[in-house]
Amino acid sequence: MKEQKLRPQLVADHNSLERIFHRPENEQSRNVLTKYMEQILFGLHDFLQKHVGITEEIPLKVLAAQFTSSKIARTPVKKLADIITEIIEEIAPQAVNVSSPYFIGHMTSAIPFFMVHLSTIVTALNQNPVKIETSKVVSVYERQVLAKVHRLLFDLDETFYNIHIQKPESTLGSFVEDGTLANLTALWVARNRLLPSKSGCAGAERDGIAAALKDRGLHRLTILVSELGHYSIRKAAGVLGIGYDAVTPIPVDSANRMDLKVLERTLKEHHRDPETSVMAVIGIAGTTETGAVDPLPSIASLCREFGVHFHVDAAWGGPVRLSERYRGLLKGIEVADSVTIDGHKQFYLPMSNGMVFFRDPKAMDAVAYHAAYINRPGSVDLGIRSLVGSRSATSLVLGSALDIMGAGGYALLIDHGIETARLFAEEIIRRPMFELITAPELNILTYRLVPGELRGSEDPKEPANEEVRLRLLNKINIKVQRMQREAGNSFVSRTTLRRSGRPDTVVLRAVLMNQRTNHKILNAILDEQEAIYRNRIAPTLRLNKAMGLTP
Amino acid sequence: MKEQKLRPQLVADHNSLERIFHRPENEQSRNVLTKYMEQILFGLHDFLQKHVGITEEIPLKVLAAQFTSSKIARTPVKKLADIITEIIEEIAPQAVNVSSPYFIGHMTSAIPFFMVHLSTIVTALNQNPVKIETSKVVSVYERQVLAKVHRLLFDLDETFYNIHIQKPESTLGSFVEDGTLANLTALWVARNRLLPSKSGCAGAERDGIAAALKDRGLHRLTILVSELGHYSIRKAAGVLGIGYDAVTPIPVDSANRMDLKVLERTLKEHHRDPETSVMAVIGIAGTTETGAVDPLPSIASLCREFGVHFHVDAAWGGPVRLSERYRGLLKGIEVADSVTIDGHKQFYLPMSNGMVFFRDPKAMDAVAYHAAYINRPGSVDLGIRSLVGSRSATSLVLGSALDIMGAGGYALLIDHGIETARLFAEEIIRRPMFELITAPELNILTYRLVPGELRGSEDPKEPANEEVRLRLLNKINIKVQRMQREAGNSFVSRTTLRRSGRPDTVVLRAVLMNQRTNHKILNAILDEQEAIYRNRIAPTLRLNKAMGLTP
Repeated sequence: MKEQKLRPQLVADHNSLERIFHRPENEQSRNVLTKYMEQILFGLHDFLQKHVGITEEIPLKVLAAQFTSSKIARTPVKKLADIITEIIEEIAPQAVNVSSPYFIGHMTSAIPFFMVHLSTIVTALNQNPVKIETSKVVSVYERQVLAKVHRLLFDLDETFYNIHIQKPESTLGSFVEDGTLANLTALWVARNRLLPSKSGCAGAERDGIAAALKDRGLHRLTILVSELGHYSIRKAAGVLGIGYDAVTPIPVDSANRMDLKVLERTLKEHHRDPETSVMAVIGIAGTTETGAVDPLPSIASLCREFGVHFHVDAAWGGPVRLSERYRGLLKGIEVADSVTIDGHKQFYLPMSNGMVFFRDPKAMDAVAYHAAYINRPGSVDLGIRSLVGSRSATSLVLGSALDIMGAGGYALLIDHGIETARLFAEEIIRRPMFELITAPELNILTYRLVPGELRGSEDPKEPANEEVRLRLLNKINIKVQRMQREAGNSFVSRTTLRRSGRPDTVVLRAVLMNQRTNHKILNAILDEQEAIYRNRIAPTLRLNKAMGLTP
Repeated sequence: MKEQKLRPQLVADHNSLERIFHRPENEQSRNVLTKYMEQILFGLHDFLQKHVGITEEIPLKVLAAQFTSSKIARTPVKKLADIITEIIEEIAPQAVNVSSPYFIGHMTSAIPFFMVHLSTIVTALNQNPVKIETSKVVSVYERQVLAKVHRLLFDLDETFYNIHIQKPESTLGSFVEDGTLANLTALWVARNRLLPSKSGCAGAERDGIAAALKDRGLHRLTILVSELGHYSIRKAAGVLGIGYDAVTPIPVDSANRMDLKVLERTLKEHHRDPETSVMAVIGIAGTTETGAVDPLPSIASLCREFGVHFHVDAAWGGPVRLSERYRGLLKGIEVADSVTIDGHKQFYLPMSNGMVFFRDPKAMDAVAYHAAYINRPGSVDLGIRSLVGSRSATSLVLGSALDIMGAGGYALLIDHGIETARLFAEEIIRRPMFELITAPELNILTYRLVPGELRGSEDPKEPANEEVRLRLLNKINIKVQRMQREAGNSFVSRTTLRRSGRPDTVVLRAVLMNQRTNHKILNAILDEQEAIYRNRIAPTLRLNKAMGLTP
């Protein structure tokens, strides 16, 4: 940021402190504060409307060079008004306009405008749900919201919810910062329930993994998840002391779903091995890269058969349960032992909001902690069974959003995403320059650009040529994605699909969740990719070919 | 909440969806949205001003009974306007007015009004700093904010910061949800650095604790922290697979600081034991219960001598470094290996914001994770070295607050807290009905109500009587705190000090951080406690005594 001159009127004294802690009582200063809010609400919006792109074409290195001051100034250097102007005029253009309908690359998108109001309420109330003494009604409100999402997922009967919804000893779920911590919490519970206290050992949580394993003659735990599992699962295994190599990737079938035969075989093998115990099997309801949904009912049966904790990572797909048309896609989630879901994804909440749910309201007892100053045994404090301590009361945002949108409103969003993804897939198939790699099951698809000269010339007699062709395709798609991103008009992401038995494939990845993304915009995005290839990549390829550098 | 009638005009259709995703373009609807914001900013404020108390005197059970609906309605049931009114009129009065100057019980307090604006900006921008592709400039902005706080704590030279502030391979720290996750992250790093990969074993993170310990002939790890350590340290040890019994509490001296002799003895013992390795020693800069600061320089020397990771939990005290007058209280923090600090505590940020810092910019390499779709090796993505994945861009709030307040502004807040706590201690000492239990070192103190008839009658010949006296005092103080809380006019918290060699002591705990808390208010709080005892507790005691039930 540009250095601002120290202005003599900015001083830190008790008078100015007094002013910033009292919300002003007179009409004039109220008007000023409201004006600021208006600027935030609409100034930012107008700016982004005029600059419909994703971001300005300034390299990150140039930006980084502007943020190299490590000193906190003694005297105030800016007023709120300066900050707001600066953020609108200097930060926002260099940030990423995730609300653009041309931004279809990640699981972050436009949010309904009322979310901004709801978040502002949360900040103004500044409750801390770790304990009743700093949240009171918000804690019981939160329990209701958790019950609503629990019921959406597990659909247990009315009696169940009547008993547990406000029973202090029951925990239907927990708010966490995001899906990563939700998965971590679920696996934490699974670990402790697998290795509880027994005579001679106080269990994994108290005595540690090494002692708990030794006590049972075990050498290792494993977690089974498809090879398309989110990297947070490996991270959770690392954090929990199991080691991330404990995560055994199960290959996927042609539809990118966990291969049930391999799962069954692996379960049998691990079951036979007296030194190994399977801690959890994870089914994915919407893989990050392809949006595929694992065969949850069959995985559930196998878990029951082998007595293994069944976790579903529905960080992405969970809210599909709100759609009458597509909820069938998540069949089987209702028999999971635990489920991860992200509020800032398909509940369209602002960053960040994650949740984890357990079918058994006593499951989280395995991770209960008490203290002398809060969270005393027997209290209603929500911090007793929770990975985090202090946190924001985001339940107010989700609870209010459910009331404002209704399941029906969310269903429109979900349905639009899935159906737009299908349209996009058709368009990709229709265009000769593209190849659809993974068809959308939910609202995510992957594809790649395949120029005519590199198309389908698979020659079984020349595997070396095929390898060169694939490597070149990967390079081209990396370039296309980067150039489009840097131009800043639209954005798709890219990933490398690594699936056993198939070559590593660089793909372009589209996540269709913005209401305003339509057929015309999708065509413009593909047009731009074609143009990038034709005008900026193909010429260099031809040159290389002429020089004998590529096939 | 009261059930609202389904109003026929609330429908979920594509038109209404269109409206909620477009921030309105015409003047009239803009005015409506601004009006809502005004209501949130001032309606809430006015309400709380009129109801100066902490909360309404309605039992939690009665409140809980109002939140028992587990169904998500199909059709929208409320509009934004209804939600705002309901939160102001029905939720806020039953929540906790943490901004009241009579609320001196927890580490949550009034925040400057501009924090609400800054948080609103963060929501409106909705960036996700897990990766550059959803944050861009915000990631390099965040690195600058982290460097500023790093420098505040470690005070390394200008050259150090010039090299590392924007170097993608360096990590000065990480934003996390709160102090609990900051402590967890610090200990995660310490664990992995103690048990890295070596020939035959890939290290704790990859192979798990059991294998890594076995490989080294170790049986256990320990963490040393004073007996006043925060419960999140035990929780972190549990999560990390070390077991919470690995946390060895070191007794405190008469000033509630870690006893250095015992620390040294314990380090020597563990050092001699070939099966045990000390993973970390934790010094506390502001214990949760008493605000005491451990002798950090001496702990640092011992850690250097024994080659142990030195973590400082400065979740509470960290910002005292901003005060020229009192920064000396935190001497020694600058030689820590890692430091926890909470933004929502003495940086006066809204819930929630935690941070963890490492002196060595390569330390967090021990917890790096990559994925194919983001966080690729070599990228600038901040999610590579981070416990959490998706998160909110709260660096914008902290960075802006530092510019608006300056170190000088924060210093006024810090100094006011410490000096008000001293005044309060004097007042407690002055009053015959109270006993100061722990004098304030920072801005936290504990005390208890001791009625004349229970005062100082320690009779060495009658230890049984003394035990009864102490038990009665504990009971009385639990009652006083509860009755004051339930009356809802003011709030102090309570805890049970459990220190080795001393009887468990129930104390009233005051945290002085609200600018508007003054001598008059503090006197009123003590007056109320005296009145509660005289009018509501003493009569029942006398009755019990008459009936021979108590001494």
